[in-house]
Amino acid sequence: MTLTVNLGMRSYPVVIQRGILSRAADWFDLDRKVLVVTDSGVPRIYAETVAKQCAQSVIVTFPAGEESKNISTWLSLLDALTEHEFTRTDCVVAVGGGVVGDMSGFAAAAYLRGIDFYNVPTTLLAQIDSSVGGKVAVDYKGYKNIVGAFYQPKGVLIDPDVLDTLDSRQRSAGMAEAVKMAMIRDAELFELLERGEGDEKIEEVIYRSVQAKARVVEQDETEGGLRQILNFGHTLGHGIETASGYTLLHGECVALGMIPMTASGLRERLTTVLKAMDLPTKYDGDAEQIMSAMAHDKKRAGDLITVIRCPALGECILQPIEFEEFLEEIREVLR
Amino acid sequence: MTLTVNLGMRSYPVVIQRGILSRAADWFDLDRKVLVVTDSGVPRIYAETVAKQCAQSVIVTFPAGEESKNISTWLSLLDALTEHEFTRTDCVVAVGGGVVGDMSGFAAAAYLRGIDFYNVPTTLLAQIDSSVGGKVAVDYKGYKNIVGAFYQPKGVLIDPDVLDTLDSRQRSAGMAEAVKMAMIRDAELFELLERGEGDEKIEEVIYRSVQAKARVVEQDETEGGLRQILNFGHTLGHGIETASGYTLLHGECVALGMIPMTASGLRERLTTVLKAMDLPTKYDGDAEQIMSAMAHDKKRAGDLITVIRCPALGECILQPIEFEEFLEEIREVLR
Repeated sequence: MTLTVNLGMRSYPVVIQRGILSRAADWFDLDRKVLVVTDSGVPRIYAETVAKQCAQSVIVTFPAGEESKNISTWLSLLDALTEHEFTRTDCVVAVGGGVVGDMSGFAAAAYLRGIDFYNVPTTLLAQIDSSVGGKVAVDYKGYKNIVGAFYQPKGVLIDPDVLDTLDSRQRSAGMAEAVKMAMIRDAELFELLERGEGDEKIEEVIYRSVQAKARVVEQDETEGGLRQILNFGHTLGHGIETASGYTLLHGECVALGMIPMTASGLRERLTTVLKAMDLPTKYDGDAEQIMSAMAHDKKRAGDLITVIRCPALGECILQPIEFEEFLEEIREVLR
Repeated sequence: MTLTVNLGMRSYPVVIQRGILSRAADWFDLDRKVLVVTDSGVPRIYAETVAKQCAQSVIVTFPAGEESKNISTWLSLLDALTEHEFTRTDCVVAVGGGVVGDMSGFAAAAYLRGIDFYNVPTTLLAQIDSSVGGKVAVDYKGYKNIVGAFYQPKGVLIDPDVLDTLDSRQRSAGMAEAVKMAMIRDAELFELLERGEGDEKIEEVIYRSVQAKARVVEQDETEGGLRQILNFGHTLGHGIETASGYTLLHGECVALGMIPMTASGLRERLTTVLKAMDLPTKYDGDAEQIMSAMAHDKKRAGDLITVIRCPALGECILQPIEFEEFLEEIREVLR
């Protein structure tokens, strides 16, 4: 299955195909110097499979985990590009999860003011969500994604075979983003997940999620308006993620974050689906910490915060409300 | 005098007017939180004049000079944005020369993936060249502008009155960029400079230079092709700048860099103009060092280097040649 993210000069293909990893050169221009970026949590063979297809390649591996998503890891990628004398016609390929994609993407965006970037997401979360759309960033001073760019990849290859090596917790966390897309844009996808067919129809789940996301990104590449709906579950989610010290996975936090933003009549269907995926629906954490993390959340604009609500399956609305009002609403998930 | 850089959604005005500094709020939306960035070489009153017009302002001052154009100064700007809890609707205003503009622009580009950026250039070089066109960057690992972005300002205000406090060497260095634009795009401007009318007609010199640059940027915002002509004199210029340890000013290096790239029949007219402006026309430096700095220059694409030549007044051509061939050609300026 192939789809295109239509962004004029910056359009690119997203290919979902078993075994595509070993045919990357059919889709990416690897006949040049290539920085292949991966992390210690990704089976080494994936990066090597891509590297083998390049005219010249340098593999850079950094330690797995959100803690690596920082300025110094980003500088280490720039060091590699500089030391190996990459030019404007060379490129970067990310082979890994969301952190690898974000770090590689922002390094490619900034090096020489931008060189080509390709993404081969190897976690379900990255396949379903973060590899598409061009948001790249690093964490800084305790704030998530506070330094970055909108920088589209030139292509994304999604190989569902790599999910075989993914542990079940990571897989569930990825599914949370599919639930998110389903809730706000694709009622049929939600029903598929509700029937418990998510695992057996994983390619369809990925395709539908990416397709829904692409249509949003095409209308609002730099998050001036509509694209904010993709933050459904994320405002609170990021707060929990920071407050938990990253002991909870991003997808788990998004699962929690969606609940209070969902119409009460729909909330039980949502939590039933989340529970069936072994995702959390209650969080027993420190409310003070979450609120403090959220007070600095970048979705805040002045004194108001724009929340994204799901009033009915497949639909969503944006609503600017007072920050304090939002805190009231989310208290029930924090219990 | 006002002109527009036409880049669709990213279009912006450039206003050239005496005293405009104290009327910045007429052109910039300063009714929000504003980070005013300046350096120790800029009279303090300029940043304060802008800050006074803001709803809320924070002035950040870093040490003047190319040595400040680095990752750690850039991070200090991000620190200020983070500490003062700037949101996506706040903005950054640069008040200073090219280094201030570059650092502020890249901080604005990266913070929250991009917030509004305005530029008030206070050196002739920045007024004539670097404040317009959206190239922002920092130096890293000894390479000039190797980490950065294409990020357009929302507006540029040029106040020729501030040039009164500029020393004559800085002023001459700025004039070198006007000579550059004249050489490749505006024969009439060259003739004006040749008649020695540059100082008395400084507004016209700025206007014509910016106008010529804007027309090039509009056709090729991200330097995929045509925009490279603006690097006339810069490939060798950057090499000399690095090799001199920044004892020579950027404009002085550009002056030197233009000479070997100019048709021999035109070269004497060029050097006569440069000499009349007290700009150097010979460089007694270490050829090895210049070559080594240039070998990493980002204008190199693979093994070829694209040089920009001026075959006749107001005209230019791009020519990919072997790096070694280029070195042969430039030797005469190095004597």
